[in-house]
Amino acid sequence: MFESTEATQYNKGQFKIALCQLSVTLDKQRNLAHALHTIEIAVEQGAKLVVLPEMWNCPYSNDNFAKYAEDFDDEDASPSFSMLSQVASNQGITIVGGSVPEWNNGLLYNSCCVFGPDGKLRAKHRKIHLFDVDIPGDILFKESDTLAAGNTPTIVDRDVGRIGIGICHDIRFPELAMLYGARGAHLICYPGAFNLSTGELLWELVQRARQEASILFVATCSPSRDSNGCYPIWGHSTLVGPFGKIIATSGHEETMVIAEIDYSTIQLQRESVPLEKLRREDIYQFVDKSAWKP
Amino acid sequence: MFESTEATQYNKGQFKIALCQLSVTLDKQRNLAHALHTIEIAVEQGAKLVVLPEMWNCPYSNDNFAKYAEDFDDEDASPSFSMLSQVASNQGITIVGGSVPEWNNGLLYNSCCVFGPDGKLRAKHRKIHLFDVDIPGDILFKESDTLAAGNTPTIVDRDVGRIGIGICHDIRFPELAMLYGARGAHLICYPGAFNLSTGELLWELVQRARQEASILFVATCSPSRDSNGCYPIWGHSTLVGPFGKIIATSGHEETMVIAEIDYSTIQLQRESVPLEKLRREDIYQFVDKSAWKP
Repeated sequence: MFESTEATQYNKGQFKIALCQLSVTLDKQRNLAHALHTIEIAVEQGAKLVVLPEMWNCPYSNDNFAKYAEDFDDEDASPSFSMLSQVASNQGITIVGGSVPEWNNGLLYNSCCVFGPDGKLRAKHRKIHLFDVDIPGDILFKESDTLAAGNTPTIVDRDVGRIGIGICHDIRFPELAMLYGARGAHLICYPGAFNLSTGELLWELVQRARQEASILFVATCSPSRDSNGCYPIWGHSTLVGPFGKIIATSGHEETMVIAEIDYSTIQLQRESVPLEKLRREDIYQFVDKSAWKP
Repeated sequence: MFESTEATQYNKGQFKIALCQLSVTLDKQRNLAHALHTIEIAVEQGAKLVVLPEMWNCPYSNDNFAKYAEDFDDEDASPSFSMLSQVASNQGITIVGGSVPEWNNGLLYNSCCVFGPDGKLRAKHRKIHLFDVDIPGDILFKESDTLAAGNTPTIVDRDVGRIGIGICHDIRFPELAMLYGARGAHLICYPGAFNLSTGELLWELVQRARQEASILFVATCSPSRDSNGCYPIWGHSTLVGPFGKIIATSGHEETMVIAEIDYSTIQLQRESVPLEKLRREDIYQFVDKSAWKP
């Protein structure tokens, strides 16, 4: 887990995060303009870190991913990428760019780009755990019918903290959150579009559970329910802080959640109940298998 | 994780569990008689598996542990052990005997004995993660001032399923629950005495979180708040089932929670959202380091 020096360097860095619970339409140009406008409003309200939803430029559906996909390596073919880069730079903020479908070497990914205040791409996360479910009488959905899975956890150091990225179903795997926690993350951002059944059953629980086990902040950002796509979306973009507390949340309608993050409160939780000291690596061990250097 | 054959062998074995939220006094003889009487009532109500609280024979306090401790290897010196063995045999049930302070080779442990319907000791769990906390303005407590920690996860096969055991603070470590899940446990029983602050903040969350990540049943059993001891106890003994749902719970007063367990519902959750298939052992790996053979 992180050293207190790493935690305290952000102690002065209390800042506002904005979770933009956008309504996503079939009109990609409109989605881009709408996201841009919303980010500008978030900045007016003081946000230093803005998070967009999973699939904010493309209605969430296997039918749509290829049609709306962009190749980030080709600037002319990537209007979503360019817009986020420009607005991050113009506004001097960090953007966790939700996710959009990405074309790369003939494969489609569900990808999240993180931009810094200089407009540069600072990290790209491709959804690692694709959403393949078969809930009897409710939903049958296989993301793997169209998408390829990413192979790399994503962590990025910004002036707003060390941030781990997951996309939607990635949140169901405590291992990924534990890996980010062990690497000293202060915050995990999960753009995600749960459906009504998994949303009602699990959305709040998994956010609080990932917070509780890894002792960091957890932010989620969903599209609003009235978005187009293959199923109704749960919404409820949320910020969870120390002791699993919900700091701010929302309903299912289009909205923006603005909340204050104070990383010193993580350190307080770590010190009051020092789980790290009590971990029993003689009995169980969690191994981070991907190569990573801070 | 367990094979479906293991899960289905208990499919017909729907059964009732009783969580005895006992009031614990300074009078050890009274505590024993009271526990015995309560177990008999649980059986009258149909329970096949009875769970007692953490420290049900001894008010929870470092000052008391040595005074109330028993050496399980010496039958004459272990009235709590003998009582549980006899009532399990007389009633033909499985008992997860909460915990009592145990003397062994000059060391004190916080230990849980599991008895089968033949009265035989089937497993003994010594609390692995001792409770050492310092919550400013609230509670400073170091169990390690008097107790030694156990070194072995405990899993036991009974006609009421494969059961993992943890005691109180053990529940804060998802690793132990994941280890039990990987060994095919259907249920984890955690006798535990959270205090008012950790209780309100975390008790419900950690039970549901352990369920959600490992997909098994989680049962907790606490003393009631009016018990003697060094701090007020949270209570709220609970059974959590598939999708983190609270099947039955209680307040802080002395009571008995009787609830139905149906292991086939675990299998349903596992099949509808097959997390196991999506785990990425190329990225992270969870290692069970203790020698165990089913």
